[in-house]
Amino acid sequence: MCQLLGMNCNIPTDIVFSFTGFATRGGRTDEHKDGWGIAFFEGKGVRHFVDHQPAMSSPVADLIKRFPIKSKNVIAHIRKATQGQVTLENCHPFVRECWGRYWVFAHNGDLKNFAPLLDGAYHTVGTTDSELAFCYLLQQMRRRFGDTQPPMRELRAFMREITAEIAQYGSFNMMLSNGEALFAHCSTKLHYIVRQYPFATATLADEEVAVDFSEVTTPQDKVAVIVTEPLTTNESWTQFAPGELKVFADGDLLPD
Amino acid sequence: MCQLLGMNCNIPTDIVFSFTGFATRGGRTDEHKDGWGIAFFEGKGVRHFVDHQPAMSSPVADLIKRFPIKSKNVIAHIRKATQGQVTLENCHPFVRECWGRYWVFAHNGDLKNFAPLLDGAYHTVGTTDSELAFCYLLQQMRRRFGDTQPPMRELRAFMREITAEIAQYGSFNMMLSNGEALFAHCSTKLHYIVRQYPFATATLADEEVAVDFSEVTTPQDKVAVIVTEPLTTNESWTQFAPGELKVFADGDLLPD
Repeated sequence: MCQLLGMNCNIPTDIVFSFTGFATRGGRTDEHKDGWGIAFFEGKGVRHFVDHQPAMSSPVADLIKRFPIKSKNVIAHIRKATQGQVTLENCHPFVRECWGRYWVFAHNGDLKNFAPLLDGAYHTVGTTDSELAFCYLLQQMRRRFGDTQPPMRELRAFMREITAEIAQYGSFNMMLSNGEALFAHCSTKLHYIVRQYPFATATLADEEVAVDFSEVTTPQDKVAVIVTEPLTTNESWTQFAPGELKVFADGDLLPD
Repeated sequence: MCQLLGMNCNIPTDIVFSFTGFATRGGRTDEHKDGWGIAFFEGKGVRHFVDHQPAMSSPVADLIKRFPIKSKNVIAHIRKATQGQVTLENCHPFVRECWGRYWVFAHNGDLKNFAPLLDGAYHTVGTTDSELAFCYLLQQMRRRFGDTQPPMRELRAFMREITAEIAQYGSFNMMLSNGEALFAHCSTKLHYIVRQYPFATATLADEEVAVDFSEVTTPQDKVAVIVTEPLTTNESWTQFAPGELKVFADGDLLPD
């Protein structure tokens, strides 16, 4: 199984602290050695880094840890291959365009006998069940709403429906963002935390690193972090229920 | 005006030497300070780096110069903004998927009154004439050939036609690759060289760097480099004629 990390904030924030702990799982504290990737939205633009080297030893991962890219929406993934070879085109997250925005997607899990028909709007480039699920999701989204993005309420209802449909084929923990909101669906395991004022010190579970967020934030900041396994040992993470889809915007969980 | 750099090879080759000279034009030996980008194909996968900082001072550009990514098709761009703000979503190259392959595109020039109708298959995310031309080109390509990539002869004939059509609106020096071939169209300025056995030493025009290619190649290697202005002072570059489209595959110019 792979691991997922997402961040959604109300002001552009760097993910160096969380990524440092997360990347350690890519080859050292965990067995996810089959590549990794991360995508940062900056406005409507995306910085997209993928690598089929383990995150622990990748020069690109090293850059991410040293170069504080500030973003309101980030999705990262470390891969333990279940389907598809260890090649660059099979590394998550995947990026496609819809409605004049980039959409970024990463998946943890394994879909069996999942073979929807793609009508040509979105094709897979690699050979993973994950990219197929992403292409299918975008295709169905465009088919439902036509050429214009609908209001969030309708988009969320659609995401609940489509993720439940795909999850019938297996495990479908996934994160998806268009740079405005971050959608997270849990089949088996996902946790989140919303950090906000008053900020405290957090200690990484995977590295001997602690950070006092009160020194690097303002009282207005809100940062939601969503991850397969909690990243810190001294904070209170909330576990998703199986089948749950949550939407984060401006650093907060949107109320149902 | 921006500058373009492309490389097409028969075996994966690193572009460190050429990129080092090219990136120097992004803020030091030339005025192209409004961001830059580079995309490397690895098989069907793409590593895509964009930055709205000048290439000379970008930590990402620094990584590219130190980390020899080997690729058979590379397209790089340094930007002097003419249309569209200096934001990440306006940095070239742009990437879209068609026929189960990523397509990478970069443009140097300025299109006036170019406002084709996009039918929804490809939308622009940013505000440049360049991304609009790319979306239009892919849309027309899919409209012409349907859901399957045609043979190269037909694809090249289409590219000649569509680049000539777009070039009616202004200057359209562009590079496009699907990871198999590299298409280069010249409106005003483009040069190329094919390096092959026997390899010699080349000296960069923009940095005090020389490399003896005979030490880093095998006799079978072929490397085509296409660039706005010649990168080296002691090699013989061929200038494109205005209106010319050339196709490079496996490190060589395809015969007409």
